[in-house]
This record gives sequence, C-alpha cells and structure tokens, in this order.
Amino acid sequence: MTTIHSPLTDDAHKVVTEALRDALIDLVDLSLAGKQAHWNVTGPRFRTIHFQLDEVVDAARKHADIVAERSATIGSPPDGRAETVAGDSQLPRQQPGWVRDDDVVATFIGLYDGVIARMRQRAHDVERADPVSNNILLDVIEELEKQYWMWQAERG
Amino acid sequence: MTTIHSPLTDDAHKVVTEALRDALIDLVDLSLAGKQAHWNVTGPRFRTIHFQLDEVVDAARKHADIVAERSATIGSPPDGRAETVAGDSQLPRQQPGWVRDDDVVATFIGLYDGVIARMRQRAHDVERADPVSNNILLDVIEELEKQYWMWQAERG
Amino acid sequence: MTTIHSPLTDDAHKVVTEALRDALIDLVDLSLAGKQAHWNVTGPRFRTIHFQLDEVVDAARKHADIVAERSATIGSPPDGRAETVAGDSQLPRQQPGWVRDDDVVATFIGLYDGVIARMRQRAHDVERADPVSNNILLDVIEELEKQYWMWQAERG
Amino acid sequence: MTTIHSPLTDDAHKVVTEALRDALIDLVDLSLAGKQAHWNVTGPRFRTIHFQLDEVVDAARKHADIVAERSATIGSPPDGRAETVAGDSQLPRQQPGWVRDDDVVATFIGLYDGVIARMRQRAHDVERADPVSNNILLDVIEELEKQYWMWQAERG
Amino acid sequence: MTTIHSPLTDDAHKVVTEALRDALIDLVDLSLAGKQAHWNVTGPRFRTIHFQLDEVVDAARKHADIVAERSATIGSPPDGRAETVAGDSQLPRQQPGWVRDDDVVATFIGLYDGVIARMRQRAHDVERADPVSNNILLDVIEELEKQYWMWQAERG
Amino acid sequence: MTTIHSPLTDDAHKVVTEALRDALIDLVDLSLAGKQAHWNVTGPRFRTIHFQLDEVVDAARKHADIVAERSATIGSPPDGRAETVAGDSQLPRQQPGWVRDDDVVATFIGLYDGVIARMRQRAHDVERADPVSNNILLDVIEELEKQYWMWQAERG
Amino acid sequence: MTTIHSPLTDDAHKVVTEALRDALIDLVDLSLAGKQAHWNVTGPRFRTIHFQLDEVVDAARKHADIVAERSATIGSPPDGRAETVAGDSQLPRQQPGWVRDDDVVATFIGLYDGVIARMRQRAHDVERADPVSNNILLDVIEELEKQYWMWQAERG
Amino acid sequence: MTTIHSPLTDDAHKVVTEALRDALIDLVDLSLAGKQAHWNVTGPRFRTIHFQLDEVVDAARKHADIVAERSATIGSPPDGRAETVAGDSQLPRQQPGWVRDDDVVATFIGLYDGVIARMRQRAHDVERADPVSNNILLDVIEELEKQYWMWQAERG
Amino acid sequence: MTTIHSPLTDDAHKVVTEALRDALIDLVDLSLAGKQAHWNVTGPRFRTIHFQLDEVVDAARKHADIVAERSATIGSPPDGRAETVAGDSQLPRQQPGWVRDDDVVATFIGLYDGVIARMRQRAHDVERADPVSNNILLDVIEELEKQYWMWQAERG
Amino acid sequence: MTTIHSPLTDDAHKVVTEALRDALIDLVDLSLAGKQAHWNVTGPRFRTIHFQLDEVVDAARKHADIVAERSATIGSPPDGRAETVAGDSQLPRQQPGWVRDDDVVATFIGLYDGVIARMRQRAHDVERADPVSNNILLDVIEELEKQYWMWQAERG
Amino acid sequence: MTTIHSPLTDDAHKVVTEALRDALIDLVDLSLAGKQAHWNVTGPRFRTIHFQLDEVVDAARKHADIVAERSATIGSPPDGRAETVAGDSQLPRQQPGWVRDDDVVATFIGLYDGVIARMRQRAHDVERADPVSNNILLDVIEELEKQYWMWQAERG
Amino acid sequence: MTTIHSPLTDDAHKVVTEALRDALIDLVDLSLAGKQAHWNVTGPRFRTIHFQLDEVVDAARKHADIVAERSATIGSPPDGRAETVAGDSQLPRQQPGWVRDDDVVATFIGLYDGVIARMRQRAHDVERADPVSNNILLDVIEELEKQYWMWQAERG
Repeated sequence: MTTIHSPLTDDAHKVVTEALRDALIDLVDLSLAGKQAHWNVTGPRFRTIHFQLDEVVDAARKHADIVAERSATIGSPPDGRAETVAGDSQLPRQQPGWVRDDDVVATFIGLYDGVIARMRQRAHDVERADPVSNNILLDVIEELEKQYWMWQAERG
Repeated sequence: MTTIHSPLTDDAHKVVTEALRDALIDLVDLSLAGKQAHWNVTGPRFRTIHFQLDEVVDAARKHADIVAERSATIGSPPDGRAETVAGDSQLPRQQPGWVRDDDVVATFIGLYDGVIARMRQRAHDVERADPVSNNILLDVIEELEKQYWMWQAERG
Repeated sequence: MTTIHSPLTDDAHKVVTEALRDALIDLVDLSLAGKQAHWNVTGPRFRTIHFQLDEVVDAARKHADIVAERSATIGSPPDGRAETVAGDSQLPRQQPGWVRDDDVVATFIGLYDGVIARMRQRAHDVERADPVSNNILLDVIEELEKQYWMWQAERG
Repeated sequence: MTTIHSPLTDDAHKVVTEALRDALIDLVDLSLAGKQAHWNVTGPRFRTIHFQLDEVVDAARKHADIVAERSATIGSPPDGRAETVAGDSQLPRQQPGWVRDDDVVATFIGLYDGVIARMRQRAHDVERADPVSNNILLDVIEELEKQYWMWQAERG
Repeated sequence: MTTIHSPLTDDAHKVVTEALRDALIDLVDLSLAGKQAHWNVTGPRFRTIHFQLDEVVDAARKHADIVAERSATIGSPPDGRAETVAGDSQLPRQQPGWVRDDDVVATFIGLYDGVIARMRQRAHDVERADPVSNNILLDVIEELEKQYWMWQAERG
Repeated sequence: MTTIHSPLTDDAHKVVTEALRDALIDLVDLSLAGKQAHWNVTGPRFRTIHFQLDEVVDAARKHADIVAERSATIGSPPDGRAETVAGDSQLPRQQPGWVRDDDVVATFIGLYDGVIARMRQRAHDVERADPVSNNILLDVIEELEKQYWMWQAERG
Repeated sequence: MTTIHSPLTDDAHKVVTEALRDALIDLVDLSLAGKQAHWNVTGPRFRTIHFQLDEVVDAARKHADIVAERSATIGSPPDGRAETVAGDSQLPRQQPGWVRDDDVVATFIGLYDGVIARMRQRAHDVERADPVSNNILLDVIEELEKQYWMWQAERG
Repeated sequence: MTTIHSPLTDDAHKVVTEALRDALIDLVDLSLAGKQAHWNVTGPRFRTIHFQLDEVVDAARKHADIVAERSATIGSPPDGRAETVAGDSQLPRQQPGWVRDDDVVATFIGLYDGVIARMRQRAHDVERADPVSNNILLDVIEELEKQYWMWQAERG
Repeated sequence: MTTIHSPLTDDAHKVVTEALRDALIDLVDLSLAGKQAHWNVTGPRFRTIHFQLDEVVDAARKHADIVAERSATIGSPPDGRAETVAGDSQLPRQQPGWVRDDDVVATFIGLYDGVIARMRQRAHDVERADPVSNNILLDVIEELEKQYWMWQAERG
Repeated sequence: MTTIHSPLTDDAHKVVTEALRDALIDLVDLSLAGKQAHWNVTGPRFRTIHFQLDEVVDAARKHADIVAERSATIGSPPDGRAETVAGDSQLPRQQPGWVRDDDVVATFIGLYDGVIARMRQRAHDVERADPVSNNILLDVIEELEKQYWMWQAERG
Repeated sequence: MTTIHSPLTDDAHKVVTEALRDALIDLVDLSLAGKQAHWNVTGPRFRTIHFQLDEVVDAARKHADIVAERSATIGSPPDGRAETVAGDSQLPRQQPGWVRDDDVVATFIGLYDGVIARMRQRAHDVERADPVSNNILLDVIEELEKQYWMWQAERG
Repeated sequence: MTTIHSPLTDDAHKVVTEALRDALIDLVDLSLAGKQAHWNVTGPRFRTIHFQLDEVVDAARKHADIVAERSATIGSPPDGRAETVAGDSQLPRQQPGWVRDDDVVATFIGLYDGVIARMRQRAHDVERADPVSNNILLDVIEELEKQYWMWQAERG
C-alpha cells in the first residue's frame, strides 16, 4: 500500500503532525459551530449575523482543507471524521436551540479567543520544524484575528 | 425570546421535524465522510476519486443547508453540532488513515445504499404532512441516486 | 383571433385558472408593497431592511412571471393590471409616508402570514387538477415560507 | 420619528415633490402595463413583441426606483402603492384578455405619446427648482423617446 | 460485469423503465426535428423562428440527458441510438427540404400537442411507482407546455 | 417559395452538396453514439470516459451545425432527420445496454478510424469545387484526429 | 522613416496588395451601409432587422481590421479613409431616408451578391501568392455567405 | 410609409436636426480617421498610440450610434453614408501611407481642437430647443475633451 | 514644457478652476474620513456601518478622479496632495480613536450637510461658464444627496 | 465603550502599534502622491506613466487597508486622517503643477527608495513581537520592491 | 506498448514529422527568448516592451502546444526537452544580462525574420502531404507575421 | 546603461542571487519536462495524467516568473535561456518518445523528490539574507510538496 513520503525529519514530522491534527479539529468544529449558529440565530441583528456566520464557515472550511492537505503532504493521514471532531475538539460546546444575536456575538468572541491562542501556540511549535506549515498557520491566525476584531467591534 | 411560528399542524410538525432532523445528520456526516476520503485516498485513480469526492461534499453541504433552513422555517431549531452528528449518525464509521481508491468506491456504494433508503422513507413519511418538505427531500434523493449510479458504474 | 389551447379538462381548467389568477394578484401586490417599504423605511436597521425588501421584490416579481405564464400556458389570459391588483388584492393596505424599521418587520410578518395561508390553499386546490401548477405553487410557498422565517427571526 | 431633511427651499421642494410623485405613478403603471401585454400578446410577431415588452418593463422599473429614491432624498416619502397607481395614473386603461401584436404596437405608441408629453412638462417644471431632478427626468425622457421611436418604426 | 442496482421494486421498475424509455425517444427526436427545421426554415420570420428552434433543441437535449441518466440511475440502460429513435419515435415525420416559417409553426404546434399528451400519460403512470421520476417528467411537461403556448401565440 | 441561391457552379454545387450531406450524417450519428456510450459506460474508468464522451458529443454537435449551415449556404437543404441518419449512416451499429469502459475505447477507436477516412476523402473531393467547404472539413478533421490520438493513447 | 519589410516576393506583393486594398474598401463600406440601414429601417420586422444589421456591422468591422492589418503586415499601408471608401467602393449607393424592412432585405441580398463574387475572385487571385491572405479571405467569404443565406431565407 | 413623429416643435426640430446631422458626420469620420492612423502609425511609441487610437474609435462609434439614434428619435433620418461623410466632413484630410507616431499626436491634437469647437457650438445651439439632445452632446464633449487633454499631455 | 490648452475663455476658466479645485479637496478628504471611520467604528451596527463607509470611500474616490481629470482637461493642474487637503479642507476634523456607530452616523450627517451645500454652490457657479463641469458636479450632488438620505434614514 | 482586546503582550503591542502606525502613514501618502502624479504627468510617455501610477495607487490603497485593519485587530485604533498624514509623513513633498514624465520616474525612484528602507526596518522591528504583522509587512515590501525595480528599469 | 496510428502515408508522414519537429523547437525557444527579454529589458520603453514580450510568450506557447499535439496526432512523439531545444534551435543566441529596450526591438526583428522564413518553408513542404498540418502552420505564420509588423513599426 | 539598485547588502545579495538563479533553472526545466510528458504519455490513465501535467506546467511557469522577477528586483539579471537550462539543470534527463502513464508517475515522483530537496536548501540559505525571497521560496515549496503528495498518492 502507498505511503506518502515525508520531506521532514522524524522529530520535525512528529511536531508538525500534532499541530496540524489539532488545527484541523479546531477548524472543522468551527465550521460546524458557525453553521449551527447560522441556522439558529434570532433577534434584530438576525440578517447581519446570519450572513457574517457564513463568512466564518467559508473561512474555516477553506483553512481546514489547506491544513488537512498539508498534513497529507508531510505524510500524516488527516483525520476530520465526526467522531474525532466531537471527541477531541477543544471548542466550548454550544447548546441546541434558538439563540439570541447578542449571545451569538458573545459566544464567538469567547470561541475565537481560545482558537487564536491555540493556533498561536501551534505556529510557534512548528516554526523551526517546518516553515511552510508555519506560514500556513500564520495565514489562519491573520484571518481569525481579523474576524475576532470584528466580533469584538460589534459587541455593542 | 423569539419563537418561529410553524405553518404546520402539531401532528404534521412532529413528523416533519423528525424527518428533517435525521436527514440533516445524514447529510452533515456525508460531507465529513466525503472530505475524510478526499484527503486520505491513494491509488492509480487518486485524482479521479479525489475530485469526485469534492462533488459529494459540495452536494451534501448544499442539501444540508436547505434541509436545515427548512427545519427552521417550520419552527424547529436545526441541530448540526459535531456531538449530535457523531452520536446519532447512521452512517457506517470509517477507519482513520490512508485508504485505497477501490475501497473508497466500495465504501461509498455501501454508504449511499443506506442513505438513499433512509431518505426515501423520510420523503414518504412527510408526503401528506408537508408537500414542500417532501419536494425538498425528493431533490435530495434525485441527486444522491444519480451519484449512486456513478459510484456503481465505476466499481470496475 | 388566436386562442391558446388548454391541455386541461374544463373542470380542471376552471379550478386552476382561479388559483393562478389569485396567486398572481397576491404576488404583484407583494412586489409593490415591498418597493413601497423599501423607499420609506427609516431607523437604525435602515440598510438591512432596505436591501432585504429588494429580495422580497425580486422573488415576488420572478414568481409573478412564472404564475402568469403558467396561466397563459393553460389558456387563461393573465390579469395583472393596476386596477385589478388594487381592486382584488387581499393584502392589508399600507399607510403612505415614512415607516420605522420595526414597523416594517411587523407589517411584513402579518402580510406573509396571510399570503402563505392563501397559497397553501391554492396549491391544495390544484393538486389533482394540474400537478404542474401544483409544483409551481409549492415553489412559491417554499420561498415565501423561508422569507417568513427570516422576518420572524429578526423581530427582536 | 426620523424626518429626512430636504436640501431644497420650500417652494422648490413643493414643485419637485409633485413632479416626482406623478412621474413615479406613470412609471409604475408603465411597468404593469408592459407585463400585462408581455403575457397576453399573440400573433406572428409574438416573440419579438414579447421580449421587447420586457425591455419596457426593465426600463420602467429602473427609472421608477431612481425617481422614488430621489423623492425620498429631497424629503418627500414616495407613494407607489397599488391603490395610488390605480387611482391616479393617467395612462389609458388596457382591456383584459389576449391582444394581437399589431394592437400592442398601436396601444404602446399611444401610451408613450402621453407619458413623454407629461415627462417633458415635469422636466421643464423642475429645471430651476432642482437641476438634479431635472437631469434625472431628462434621462427618463431620453430612454422613453428612444423606445417610442422603435414602437413607431415597427408600426408596419 | 457491473449491473446498476435499482432502488425500486420490480413492478415499479418495469413501469418507470418503460415511461423513461419512451420519453427519451420523444426528446431525442424532438432535438433532431428542431435542428432540421432550424436549418431549413425560410420566410420573413426566418430569424425569429431560427433562434426559437435552438431553444427547442437546447431544452430537448437537456431533458433527454436528465431522463436518460434517471433511467441509468434506476438500473435500466438508456437507448438513444439513431435506429431506435428512427424506428420507435411517435413524432410525425418531417419532409426534407426548405420549409416556410408559417409551416414550421403549424408543424411544431402539432408536434408539441402529441408529445405533451404522451408525457402527461407517462407522468401519471409513474406517479406511484417513483415520485422522483414523476417530478422529472413534470419538469419536462412544464417546459414543453410553456413552449407550446408560445408556438400557438405566434400562429398568427 | 424562397430558394437559396448558390454561389457555386452547378458542377461544384453537386460535388459539395454530396460531401456535406454525408459529413452531416456522420456527425449527427457520432453525437448520438457519443451520448449512448456516455449513458451506458461502466467500469473503473467510468468518470474519465463519461466526461470524455461529452466532449465527443459537443464537438460533433458543433461541427454538425457548421456543416449543415454551410449546406444551406450553398443552396442545398440539409437533412439531419432521425430516419435519414439511421438509414444512411456508415457508422458501425452499437449494441444496446451497459458497456465496459475498455470496450467503449475500442469501439470509438474503430469508429473514429472510419469517420476520419471518409472526412479526408470528402475534404479532398471539394478542394477545387469550394475552398470554403474544404476549410470547414479540414477543421472537422483536425479535431477528430486529435480526439482519435487521445482514444488511442488511452487504449492501455 | 520606418518601412515595413514584406515577407513576399515583389510579384506576390503586388497581387496581394491589390486584393487586400479592395477587400478593405468593400468591408468598411459594408459597415457604414449596415449602420445606415440599422438607423433608418422601419416596418413590422423593425427589431429583427435592426439587430441583424448590427451583426453585419460587427462582422464587417472585425474583418476590415484583420484585412487592414494583414496589408500592413505585408508592407502595404492600408487605406480606409472616408474619401477612398466613398470614391472607390463598388457597393451600390443607398438612398438617404427611412427605408422599409422588406426593402432592406432586398437591398442587402443584392449587396452581398456583389461583395461575395468580388471576394471569391480576390481569394482566387492570392491563392498562390500568399496562402495566409488566402485563408483570411476564405474566412471573410465563409461568414459573408452564411449571412447571405440568412438574408435570402428571410426574403419572404 | 411609416414616418417617425417628432416630439419637438418645428423650429426646435430644425435646429436639432442640423446639429445632430453635423455631429454624426464628425463622429463617423473621426472613427475612420482613428482606424486609418491605428493601421499606419510607426515609431517607438507604436504600441501606445496604436491602442490609444482604438479607444478613439470605440468612443467615436459609441457616440455616433447615440447621436444617430437620437436623430431618428426626433423624426429625422440619420445619414452616415460614405459619400455623405466624405463630402461634408469638416475634419482635415489625412495623407495615405505610413505616419510617424509624433505626427499622429500632432494630427489628432489639431483634429480634436476643431471637433470640440464645433461640438460646443452645437450643444449651445440645441440647449433651448431640446435639453435631451443637449445632454447627449455634453457627454460627447466631456469625453472628447478628456481625450484631447491626453493627446496634448503626451505631445512631448 | 507642455501646457494643456483650455477650451474655455479666461473668465470661465477662472471660475471653473476654483470650483473644481475646492470640490477635489472635499472629495479627497471625504475619502480619507470615510476610511478613518471604516477602521475605527465599533458597536452593534459595526458591520453595516463598516461596509456602508466603503461605499462612501468608493464614491468619493471615483468622483475625485473625475473632478481632477476635468480640471486637467480645462488646463488647470489638479492639487490633491496631503498638505493641500489637510490645509484647505472645509470638512470638520475627526477625533482619533475608536468611535461608536451612532456617533459615526451623526458625524457623517453633519459632514454631508456641509459638503452638499458647497457642491450645490459650485455647480451653480459654473453653470454658465462650463456646462460640462456643471453636469459633472450635478452627478456628484446626486450621489452625495442619496447617501445623505440613507445616513439620515438610519439615524434611529 | 468597546475596546478591542489585543492578542499581544504589552511590550509587543507597543512595538507593533508604532510600526503599523508609520507604515499606514507612508502608504496613505503614497496613494495620494500617486494620484497627484497620475493627474499632472505630461510628456511622450504620458499614457504609460499615467496608467502605471494607478497601479501604484491601487497597491498603496490595498496595503493601507490591510495594515490599518491589522492595527485595529491588535487593539490599536488606526489613524489615516488628512492632518496626520500631512503632518507626519516622511515622504518628500511634491511640487504642485504639471510634471514631465522623466521627472515623475526620477521622483518615484527616490520616493520608493525611502519607503522601502523604512518598511524593511519596521518588518525587522516586529519580527519577534508579532510574526503575523511581520508577514503583512514582508508582503508590502515584496510588492514595493518589485515596483521599485520597474521604476528603475524605465529610467532610460 | 501503445503506438499512435498515423492517418498519413509513410512518405507524407516523414515530411510532416520533420516540419512539425523543427517548428516545435523554434516555438519553444521563442517562448524562452521572450521570457528572457521580458525579465531583462530596461529603458524608457520598459513597460511597453515588457508586456509586449508576454504576448510573444503566450503566442509561442499556444502554438507550440498545437504543433506538438498535431505531431502526436500523426503518430510522431514530439520532442520539446531543454537539451533538444538548446542543441537544435536555429534562433540566434541571446547574451545574458540587462538589455536596452531598443536592442530588444532590434533583436526580435532579426529573430522573427528567421523564424518566419523557416515556417513558410515548412508550410510549403507539407502542403500536399497533410493539408491539416499546413493549415496549422499557416495560422502560426499569420500570427508571427503580424507580430513582426509590430516589432518593425516600433523600431523608431 | 541602467543598473537596478539592490536593496540588499553585498553579502546578502550574493547568497540570494545564487539561490534564485538555481531555482529559476529548476522551474523552467520542470515546465519543459511537464509539457514533454503531457504530449508523450499513453495508457489507460492518459487523460488524468495528461491534464495533471498541465497543472505542473502552469505552476512551474508561474513560480519561474515570480522567482525571475525577484532576481531582477534585487539587481541580478535572471537567466532562463535554453542553453543555460539545458546546461545547468539538475533534473534527471527524460528519454524521447512515448511513455506509459505508470512510468510518468514514477518519473515525476523522482523528479519532485530532487527539486524539493534543493528548494528547501535554498530557502534555508536565504532566510537571514532576505526574508522576502525566503517567503517566495516557501510558497514554491508549499505548492511543489502538495503536488508531490498527489503524485505519490496515485502511484498505485
């Protein structure tokens, strides 16, 4: 059976594999959380938040794909299955049911706060081991932090 | 707090809510399973299957969104959270790691076989209760069955 | 003079003609009501509501055209003239002049409530007589109900 | 409640409000008359006239929107409700039912003749009071007169 | 050798196979008849009819593809070969050579009259056996009947 | 009745008419054969062959239209009716039913071999009589031969 | 001063220069004649002929540009000035003023008849001297003859 | 025979007809002069001037069409025939043959100087008689004067 | 050194130069003020105002370019340097730092009030001297007044 | 009042704030300087330089927006007001009035020389404090240096 | 192993193979020479020549692909490897390093002069053997000669 | 003669020049090798590999252009001439003639293995000397490694 050859040393490979694995879980879960809120939000700012959440989902899906294919590229099979995401995700759990627009804003400020901190740590961890993966994670951080500013700016 | 008013009777509402809830879980999990295979497939047909799986994902995401918004429309908050999907999905679990192209084809033939049977049952269940939801599910079936033909046709 | 031949029996023709006639009046008046509010809305949510109303108008115009051409297709000349709409429309009358954004939301929730109930009755009436017209009306209902959900969701 | 501040003097405001009000009614009714004929025309030139009428409708709707928003801009709430249009329109009434292509051409030549004369008068009335509204009405006239030429040219 | 598994019962499969088989032959022959007239029409309405016939061809080809792939989807290999179409088509035969525009209109009114009646019968036949195929045929009918209205409207 | 004036001498007209007539039949039948295989192919290369066949169909339809309109242009009414194609086509007949991908490749290699030989003869026949038709047929040959290379290249 | 070097022999250069010079004058005048008729046509077929004439103009302008740049390419400065076109054009002169649609059709049938005969002669003249220019003129002829067929076909 | 009805008084009609007639001749000749220079320019700035001249031609053609159709609209048949343009144009005659880029710039500065002065006079003449035509001519002037600035700016 | 020739008399030139100079400064500063607020706005309406301000910036930049190029066109070199804008702008100064969404709305209502009054004066000043510049300024006013309506409408 | 939370430590925040502040001023002033030259350039290379300067402006505006939003993202309100730019910019001042194309090239070579040196210093300063801002500034440098090469290459 | 069947006789095959082989080498080397100059050109015409060279490269790459695939089509494997191009190319060698814009123009005039002569010979050689390859080479010549005119025209 | 000023120190300049020089040769040769295989591949996976190779070529050409322009930007004239590439390339030589699809996959796996190792070394070499060039090379590596994964994944 085909095995994908890694361009990295074994030590580097171990570090990068772990960082990408966790980043992928965060990003897939972020895309699911974004859709969940997209469907359940209510309140006077419904439309604004409803569409903003689709930008969250689009960005999360795009970055999840880049991160997963980087993982395959360095020879580590990515794992984005539902049970893996549900079991290992560090995102706070969302309650089911309708949710007020103000609560969505507050929830996502908290959610981004955690994801960004973890992503910054991962980017730091892989900096020496694989600068290409480091660059990929810096792009993720740049976009997440920009969205984080916007969630804060509209806190009200 | 806002509650979305249902245009259906209580009995109809109960039937349709359940059908849409299960359809949503199938479709979200199908989109995750499609991406998982997209990232892990190997073999001589890698590129063909790799891109075909993105069509699976695109279709599953599109229909998941339509089904979820129909659920909201009839007054039932949709639930597409990771833990719900992981816990309640009826799709067979996939193993982690690289997977041969022939095995992907076989896996998805089995997977579609089950999804289609369940979707046909749901479409039948809601036919009297809500013809609009029935139409939405028939569209899902039409696309899934067409993809099912193609998976079978390339079984080899 | 040319007369368009109806593919329906006389009885079916009568039922379907009436349903399409009334649906057309509802939809043309909805497009006029949407534009009226689009021009007169004020308040903090001005931009959100202003653009949302153009989606109401676009949908109403698109479906009015489909319904009218279906009427012509079954041999009944459509009637969407100003005096017919003003005289026979069942939509509640709007007051002239500026209107607050919250009032627009409340007005359109009431307005959609009535239109949807009437459209559901019409779809039911033509189901046996002409399944094609039935399908057309189900598409109208699907879109109107989705917009109805959104109006409710942003009620605040 | 919000009131839109007018950039015009009171006298100018009064003149311009009236001109725009009447122009809006003409244009909304023209769009309805265009659709009515679009749906009911028959004869050897059916397709040519059918599609030409959609250009009439598109132009009338576009200019109605510009005129109405100019009215709002100068602080006068626009009125394009069905009852206003049906009650105050100066367009000749159309008969219901199928109509021969030659008769459509003749009808619209007469209809444009009247609209253009009224629009020219309105443009003249506002020339001193508000050159911006004057420019807007001259654009309306330019397009209507060009369409008028075409209706005449194909009179046969 | 691969055989496509049918999601239908044996009885349903037999009814649907036959309906789709005949629909496919009608649609392929309609596309050939449309092109034939497209190339051979003459007369003052040449351009109008010439381009209208390309819309006939486009619609016939699109629906033929959908019908054929639905047939494959339910496990029945489609048959759109020249000899099958020539041998089994129920469309009236066209004469070779130049044809006047008025005659084209008359020919296609007759031709659509027959196709629509047969399609309505087929849609009715499959309604219980396979609602997905029923929906596909209703879409065919909706488009054919709309084109039929236009052919009649321009009869002159 | 209108007759299209030929820009060719009588002798040239006769030669070119025959060449274009036969080319049209080959191309229409090629488009039908391509669709037939597109719908019925099975095997591991299903998707690759399935989409390649749509390129065959697109090219055959495009060139059939050019050839037929050239025939009309030189005053000879084209004949692409189902019975003409079925009766006079020189393409080998295809069997109905599912067909393996390898067999599709072999079939189309044989099929292109014949069509190309006949098209080369036709191009040669009209070279003196009408260089414009000669150029049209050379374009057909260039595209068919390029596709022929690809069919051979993937023979395996 | 720059002189463009000709890739042709002196004899070939002389023959090709003359052919391209005359072709350019025909094509520029055809574009002016097409616009003249586009602006002045009247009658029941006004719109059809009005738009068809813009296709004449577009084709004539495109080919005039190709022919003129080919002339420059072989080292002969092109001449498309108004006085050259007016003085040397072989197109029949058009009368000023409104012109009936039927007369436009008749006029352009005559006009194309002449242009095509002259273009065929020019293509023949340059065949040995410059096959590239020959190809360019054959493309002109192919398009003109196709338009000629359409003008004849709609003669009525 | 159809005559286009003028929306202007007889006096106004006479003034406007003359202004539009002369403007049309200027613009058609400008488009021919632009193409002539486009084909014959040489020198180090060849490409810059070559493409700039196509912008001259595009603008001249666009405005010629607007002016001519305005003339038709007010009931005066436009005249843009080669002999009219060659006979009545006030543009200075260009010499045939290759022309240096610096000379093209100098020529077009002179040429625009004259056209602009005449267009300003025409706009002034029609200001009272027909504000719509006045607006059309002001648009022509705005574009010509902007191009005139650019020609001067690159004089060197 | 090149000097751009003015198509205006000396008196007209002086009046128009001044009007365009001041309009340019207003528009460049408006684009800077719009971006400043775009970056610093906070509050529940963050996204709505954030994007609305980009429309302010786009419009200001587009009109600044048109006004500056008109100035160059009439022979007056435009001046949009930072020091000129900072020194001569009549817009009220904005404070640095975060700013609440409601305050942005209030600020821009005041800001537009002033700009519009000055632009109306400038349009009036140049009406006789240069109708082309007058038209350009009327377009600026039309757009600014429309945006002014929207700012007022959403005041809340 | 909302304050945007910074993902950086206080020391890092101080360093990055200053670097982004100065980068923003450079970029806004570069966009103004580019437009100023775009409007005032003259000479034989007018068009080349005129359009090249719009690329300068587009790049400067795009990067200014990215830098300003990064500043907001790290919790520092950006300052791009006219007075800030005019007061603090380190770009050399440009003279008002027409400027020769060669002088524009020389001016921008000097201008880019300074901006690039300052940007390189800023990128270096933030490298440890915030790698995301470092990446953003490296992108700015990459584009500025490429444009700098082009300005030098065309120095002549 | 697969061998591609040639539609040509052995003699024709030999002649055409050689012509296409040499044409491919010329075109690949032309694309490399174009890029080399694109990167190294300097001087006042930098931008004009820089972008013109990309058109050279685009055309050379497009035609190289067509020629190589025609070679494969007639059963001769194409050879565009670096060592083949470097060893067998008949283009004059370029010096490394910066090159003045005037020298680029002179170099490419010489370079095109040679390529065109060789391409004309090849087109002549294959005229009888394979008219399809002849047509392909005539298209190459048409484009190269047009670019050759432009290089000469801007020689200065 | 113009010399491009380097923004780097002499030592940094030397290091970066060498890295970019070698990267350019690798990338140009990769684009030639990709086209060579694109034209000569045969076997059941012909189409898949044929199109995949065009993605190789597109990426290699895009990155070659970026690398070469970066080299010019830092003041080192790039060298991508055929003799340089053929003489200095470190890619293994390909045999001429048809090549089986499996062999293409194996060849490119080996080829990418070497290119990636060399690119990683170059990126490392320039990291301190020029972070901008480092970023450019990391982008090259990211894309090459992703394609390398895909070649391996389809090894079979």
